[in-house]
Amino acid sequence: VQHSRRAFLSLASGLALSGIARPATSSETLPAWLVSYREPSSRLIGAALSDTFAWRRLAELTDTFGPRLSGSPALEDAIRWALRQMRTDGLDHVRGEPVMVTHWVRGEESLDVLSPYPSRVAMLGLGNSVGTPREGIEAPLVVVSGFEELESRRAEVAGSIVLINVPYTDYFSTVGYRTTSASRAGRVGAVAALVRSVGLDGLRTPHTGVTTYQSDGPRIPAAAVSVEDASRLARLAARGPVRLRLVMGAQMLPDAQSSNIVAEISGREKPDEIVVVGAHFDSWDVGTGAIDDGGGCIVTWEALRLMRALNLRPRRTVRLVLFVNEENGLRGALAYRDQHKSELSNHVLMLESDSGVFRPRGFGFTGTPDARDTLESIALLLSHVGADRIGPSGGGPDIGPSVAMAQIPAMSLETDESKYFLYHHTAADTVDKLDALDMARCAAAVAIVAYVVADLPQRLGQPAGTQ
Amino acid sequence: VQHSRRAFLSLASGLALSGIARPATSSETLPAWLVSYREPSSRLIGAALSDTFAWRRLAELTDTFGPRLSGSPALEDAIRWALRQMRTDGLDHVRGEPVMVTHWVRGEESLDVLSPYPSRVAMLGLGNSVGTPREGIEAPLVVVSGFEELESRRAEVAGSIVLINVPYTDYFSTVGYRTTSASRAGRVGAVAALVRSVGLDGLRTPHTGVTTYQSDGPRIPAAAVSVEDASRLARLAARGPVRLRLVMGAQMLPDAQSSNIVAEISGREKPDEIVVVGAHFDSWDVGTGAIDDGGGCIVTWEALRLMRALNLRPRRTVRLVLFVNEENGLRGALAYRDQHKSELSNHVLMLESDSGVFRPRGFGFTGTPDARDTLESIALLLSHVGADRIGPSGGGPDIGPSVAMAQIPAMSLETDESKYFLYHHTAADTVDKLDALDMARCAAAVAIVAYVVADLPQRLGQPAGTQ
Repeated sequence: VQHSRRAFLSLASGLALSGIARPATSSETLPAWLVSYREPSSRLIGAALSDTFAWRRLAELTDTFGPRLSGSPALEDAIRWALRQMRTDGLDHVRGEPVMVTHWVRGEESLDVLSPYPSRVAMLGLGNSVGTPREGIEAPLVVVSGFEELESRRAEVAGSIVLINVPYTDYFSTVGYRTTSASRAGRVGAVAALVRSVGLDGLRTPHTGVTTYQSDGPRIPAAAVSVEDASRLARLAARGPVRLRLVMGAQMLPDAQSSNIVAEISGREKPDEIVVVGAHFDSWDVGTGAIDDGGGCIVTWEALRLMRALNLRPRRTVRLVLFVNEENGLRGALAYRDQHKSELSNHVLMLESDSGVFRPRGFGFTGTPDARDTLESIALLLSHVGADRIGPSGGGPDIGPSVAMAQIPAMSLETDESKYFLYHHTAADTVDKLDALDMARCAAAVAIVAYVVADLPQRLGQPAGTQ
Repeated sequence: VQHSRRAFLSLASGLALSGIARPATSSETLPAWLVSYREPSSRLIGAALSDTFAWRRLAELTDTFGPRLSGSPALEDAIRWALRQMRTDGLDHVRGEPVMVTHWVRGEESLDVLSPYPSRVAMLGLGNSVGTPREGIEAPLVVVSGFEELESRRAEVAGSIVLINVPYTDYFSTVGYRTTSASRAGRVGAVAALVRSVGLDGLRTPHTGVTTYQSDGPRIPAAAVSVEDASRLARLAARGPVRLRLVMGAQMLPDAQSSNIVAEISGREKPDEIVVVGAHFDSWDVGTGAIDDGGGCIVTWEALRLMRALNLRPRRTVRLVLFVNEENGLRGALAYRDQHKSELSNHVLMLESDSGVFRPRGFGFTGTPDARDTLESIALLLSHVGADRIGPSGGGPDIGPSVAMAQIPAMSLETDESKYFLYHHTAADTVDKLDALDMARCAAAVAIVAYVVADLPQRLGQPAGTQ
């Protein structure tokens, strides 16, 4: 989707007038303690929605540096760029916090049918997979419909390249085939594991993602094939013997030096109490990591940029953390937890965006009922951007370790994720799939939640009147 | 889409009972001369719709041999397979008719952004393009919005790799950018031409297709980039200078020996009068050429197979012609015209399927009003398969030269083409995009038209009572 600035501004002002499909919240319906937040919220929404800045910044990031796999020069160059931009934005305490990250490289890779007739298969090696010998692995194909058949046909599977061909239903039901097939297939003697891509039907589009080896089992190469190719291999195998050659130059190199990106709006009264907003800055090495999770980085970053631009400095500190190595190591998440262990008890709230910055719907939240009550009131301010639902559970992979260690209230931005798993971990994860106005809405929603929670007289979840 | 045979049969029989969304045509509403065709038409529909044979045959062809580019061993092997299958089907006069075809090969190819920051672009060289030197072509990028800007910025374009970045509206309005950009850009001094893919928005999916050099101009390499990459290159160029390297190993080799595939149901009374049904057997070298045009080949072939299986032998000959080299030479079409010149005046009708075998709608027809009247009556028999519309114009690239030479009445199968240009000339042109029941409907529709026209007492377009 392309956006002319003019059409956008006219749309944005039209929406400001019309209130976007939700009735405007009048001050009378707000709890008394929230009324004073109406004005800064309106300014945050106005500043976000009257510009395509977030989309353009994401386009600049992803157009220029492309994908940002942990250990790659592009990730480090993009981190330097982001730190420079944050200083230009006037954010406080901008810094990289050192993290040693997983350094996996894909290398050249291919999968060919050798017989009954030579042809090429659309595939992507799975992240963290071992490679094949240089000349590849040649073996017969065995296709199974799941782990039960993998076990029951183990005599045939031994020595084969096995395709675990499970149709996608939803991500959380099928991602386990991607993460565990290599270990399970290796254990029954397969020489390589293929999985049907975990994602919505695409256009011959393989989806990568991490695979995990159990420490006590064999490590065999693992790759995803496109939905079309999985079906084709299954039909070929049903007609007769199929022989494949898999070549994967994948390698796990020694850990590499990288950084979590941190920047703040320092609190004016209680700078040691902290509201964290964040996302992950690394991506897979296909596409440009715009949806997963460049967009999340930009909209959480926008929350701070907008506060700074509008000179809104809350009582507590709002801290932006852009984590590294979420995709294939989670080292950024663990490093943040460990490096900030002593101040985790001062973390009032942690909020992550890692499900795409499509049209916002609201936030998931995990925390005490009192904190939820407060957030549901704050959400009244988000009706203008359509983000006023507070769902039953919040969190995210990057804030997860800190949240778990210190029982920190946790939120996640929720959006229209209907197409998220069409693009997820594919070459099609590019900025054009995101809409500038929806990104602006996401940024405004994150900014308002972060600002109000950081500015409340009492700490989130504490009774009003307490400090 | 996967089809279990059982679900399919139950669906097909349900549809036979319900008459699919169109009222059943009772014999009373048919013209008297058509009534006797009701019974064979019902048998053709019944035989087609009670089986997934057409889809399975297309799957076997495309799964096994993959794409069938002119000059490739896969095309010749697939031709031999088809000839064997046709003999097994019991068709008459099965033969290959020799054709010398264009022999273009793609070779290795890539397009990289060198600066402002290195990254890879999703591209496909255009068919019949010249290659680059082995080390590629390095040049600055110039992006233009059309041919007018190409001319007005010729000073900048000279020495550049130019991207002609015209958004897709519909195929016939935009395909000219693909076919002529290389010549036009070469004429103003560009060293290579890129076009925005001519097709619906995909998933980082470049669309190949033929480009044509004017005989008196320079020949520069030409490639299509995905819609996403075209937009990205345009944004990069708007931000500052961009330098690219294009590598294309494309080569035009000497013409290769190939064949049109011909098979018949010989007419029982007038075997010298001929109804041709056909499609093109070659494809581009990406995807597996299932939609363009393997499906057309199978459904026209099915028309003959079904007649033979049901022992329906019309008065005239029904001839299947599967043309080669439609995509990048049209040599099969020209060879058929030239080799059959003496009998073109005996061609009663030529029918081509080259727009995908999705749910059928009917046929386009070009011919005399009398012939149209007859076909509109015959179409009454097609209401059960939803193919009873006779549209204003028929024809096709393969039958075109013969039709033009001898003013032969011309038909084209028309289907729901809404997704045709999503898959067209891409890696996603695979059999799973086609539905077995829709293919069966297409086959039945082609079979009925071919059978009735071939069997009418009078020649199509002649008054009843004449012979």
